[in-house]
Amino acid sequence: MRMTTLSSSALLTDRYELTMLQAALRDGTADRRCVFEVFTRRLPHGRRYGVVAGTGRVLEELAQFRFGAAELEWLASERVVDDATLEYLAGYRFGGTVVGYAEGEVFFPHSPLLVVEGTFAEAVLLETLVLSVLNYDSAVASAASRMTSAALDRPCLEMGSRRAHEWAGVAAARAAVVAGFAGTSNLEAGRRYGLTTIGTAAHAFTLLHDDERSAFASQVDALGPGTTLLVDTYDVKAGVARALEVAGSGLGAVRLDSGDLGVLAHEVRAQLDAAGAHEVRITVTSDLDEHAIAALAVAPVDSYGVGTSVVTGSGAPTCGMVYKLVAREDATGVMQPVAKASTAKTSVGGRKSAARRSVDGRDVEEVLVAGDDDRVRAVSASWDVAREAFAATDGPGELRPLHVPLVVDGHVDDRWTGADGVRTAAERHRLSRAALPRGARRLSADEAALPTVTLALPPA
Amino acid sequence: MRMTTLSSSALLTDRYELTMLQAALRDGTADRRCVFEVFTRRLPHGRRYGVVAGTGRVLEELAQFRFGAAELEWLASERVVDDATLEYLAGYRFGGTVVGYAEGEVFFPHSPLLVVEGTFAEAVLLETLVLSVLNYDSAVASAASRMTSAALDRPCLEMGSRRAHEWAGVAAARAAVVAGFAGTSNLEAGRRYGLTTIGTAAHAFTLLHDDERSAFASQVDALGPGTTLLVDTYDVKAGVARALEVAGSGLGAVRLDSGDLGVLAHEVRAQLDAAGAHEVRITVTSDLDEHAIAALAVAPVDSYGVGTSVVTGSGAPTCGMVYKLVAREDATGVMQPVAKASTAKTSVGGRKSAARRSVDGRDVEEVLVAGDDDRVRAVSASWDVAREAFAATDGPGELRPLHVPLVVDGHVDDRWTGADGVRTAAERHRLSRAALPRGARRLSADEAALPTVTLALPPA
Repeated sequence: MRMTTLSSSALLTDRYELTMLQAALRDGTADRRCVFEVFTRRLPHGRRYGVVAGTGRVLEELAQFRFGAAELEWLASERVVDDATLEYLAGYRFGGTVVGYAEGEVFFPHSPLLVVEGTFAEAVLLETLVLSVLNYDSAVASAASRMTSAALDRPCLEMGSRRAHEWAGVAAARAAVVAGFAGTSNLEAGRRYGLTTIGTAAHAFTLLHDDERSAFASQVDALGPGTTLLVDTYDVKAGVARALEVAGSGLGAVRLDSGDLGVLAHEVRAQLDAAGAHEVRITVTSDLDEHAIAALAVAPVDSYGVGTSVVTGSGAPTCGMVYKLVAREDATGVMQPVAKASTAKTSVGGRKSAARRSVDGRDVEEVLVAGDDDRVRAVSASWDVAREAFAATDGPGELRPLHVPLVVDGHVDDRWTGADGVRTAAERHRLSRAALPRGARRLSADEAALPTVTLALPPA
Repeated sequence: MRMTTLSSSALLTDRYELTMLQAALRDGTADRRCVFEVFTRRLPHGRRYGVVAGTGRVLEELAQFRFGAAELEWLASERVVDDATLEYLAGYRFGGTVVGYAEGEVFFPHSPLLVVEGTFAEAVLLETLVLSVLNYDSAVASAASRMTSAALDRPCLEMGSRRAHEWAGVAAARAAVVAGFAGTSNLEAGRRYGLTTIGTAAHAFTLLHDDERSAFASQVDALGPGTTLLVDTYDVKAGVARALEVAGSGLGAVRLDSGDLGVLAHEVRAQLDAAGAHEVRITVTSDLDEHAIAALAVAPVDSYGVGTSVVTGSGAPTCGMVYKLVAREDATGVMQPVAKASTAKTSVGGRKSAARRSVDGRDVEEVLVAGDDDRVRAVSASWDVAREAFAATDGPGELRPLHVPLVVDGHVDDRWTGADGVRTAAERHRLSRAALPRGARRLSADEAALPTVTLALPPA
């Protein structure tokens, strides 16, 4: 059995990116300067905002996007592309520029989430990988934000690895933390992104033992009395009593994983309090989603473990983000806006930048600006330029530019990657969500929380 | 920025698997022989059968499930487990036995899809990884099977990588092919599993050029007239006319990616036929799912490109498979059935085997057998023993045993892995689906296509 180690991300790519490259190299258009934008045409049904996540992972993957000997050999053996294309791929390094919404930022339909500028050749190759990462991670973060919102100040813990592809589970843990989760059960996510990892025992551990008491005694002996004991393998009331007998009132928490969690939490809290175990916490798990969490707000629950619903985006397992060519050089070297013209899937041509307008600290609208390509680029590249440009647009209040530099001439800005990137993104999300209009965090189905307007950027 | 190469799958694991191991090592129960079963309590709403996929990937991942220096160092630095546990992990090799449904087999609620036998220590560590792989891959295959069923003899092509986590996209392509898809756009999936890869060009390629004609001419020059031209960037009718002018009637196909595909396909077919281009095929893409494919059955379409819906399981992005301890040694070394006893999530204790009963070549029921542990194990391990045992059960027709050996005493059976494993699984799926009762392939919501009965296995 031959195993390829996952050291290159270059073939995580649709075949047509390479065949387009071959044709463009052959006809000379591969060098045309191009602008691709990532955006979504709509939010999932009833959702009021989305959350950008995965940006840091895109930048990390970019560093691994190299066509090595193994990849080139396979492409050659399968005759996917011709020799000239293989030669181009062998030397491939993304040398372009990427700006975009900071990871953790909230977004709306048509928000220009990522703007990739480079030659057609270097930019088109990234389409599949960029969309895979952003579509999945943002779907998870968008759902996770509703859960942390519903949980108020109680911690949410991500435990869904088993209900997602094994590497998607790692990304999901990361995205959940971007959206406010306090930790994850996934060890690889802990290692890669410096996340807090959690978890103590499953029902199998209790069933392994001859009785519940010996299982609890073993766990307390190994993990200390501050551990969390799972008390619903046989009978919850008896389980709680045994947990206290074995661990004493220094027990960290009890976990409930089945039944009517609201009712059980009240009963267990009363039982714990009657035993003087006021400090023992109650954690609940079992197919929770944002609605179940909201319904438990009045129950004496201290933390929520969330699995399936967070890693599958709670009904919206992917975002509809697309990667569209919006501008490119013409034969004379002048940038021209372009857009698909036929039915339905239309989009607005030309490079865009974005800002969020707030009045008295509360956001009121998403402002997209379009116009002369160089001018919009300058606005996206510099907050100083952006503030000055946006100041000339109409409207009250403050405008906060949304594009930040991610890759400059092929150099990844490391602020956004690794564990630091996740922390920065979580803070960005906290601030961005807090600035949304009152009511934006309601779980009931409604329109986007902010309207989006597109303005023509005034000349410099 | 520190990048870890994805060479070990050992930390794709929930933290509690390791803390349970620590406690069990300490109290001596880690060596108890255990049987864990993977099954699902229900099918997604309205689905009539599920499709097992990912088995080959589980076996491939098992070979990489090693705690290397990097993993151990991180676990030590985070104090996830104690030194004795780290020492156990350093020497970890799964030495147990796994039987299960062959990849591609259809399944129903409570089908014992995988039966893992080993010490508690060696078997519990695999829970998260096994479930991640099977839950995702089977969700994709279960949806994909409905699509290939609806498509009848027209090929379905998987193009959804951009709507899934980047590595999930690779697994999705593989799972779709298990369920009858003819190929994928994903290059990495092509490389790893020997799948046919497909794709020619996106709208960006047309927009890159000064006009549609020069884009088509470039593509035909680079990829030959047998290529597929995307004709809906501007105006479909004009696009088709240009495609024929540029490529001639030797053009391979035209692709439609927007609009009312049924109406457009009729118009385009008429236009092609009027031009004598009877051999030019029509392929359609654009948010297709099994229902859209079924609706296009009367349209002159030659193949379907499917994206989002297949990689997200068409409304059911994960299976609800669980990995439950069903039997374990007691203190005297005798195997005892075990099961969680409290509310709701109950399951049947004890090891099970399975067969499918058919009458006149058509399946009529799923038969699970339970009983003495050694006896059921012998039935699962050998088709000869199984045929003899099942012959003693009541009922008409033939019984086909469903468990095949996957890992024997730690040795992976290579028949199920790599490209060969995918081919074998696709054939298994074709045969299993064909044997389902008439009506089982209807897309409308209904009960499981077969009833499941559990029989006590007669004594040997």
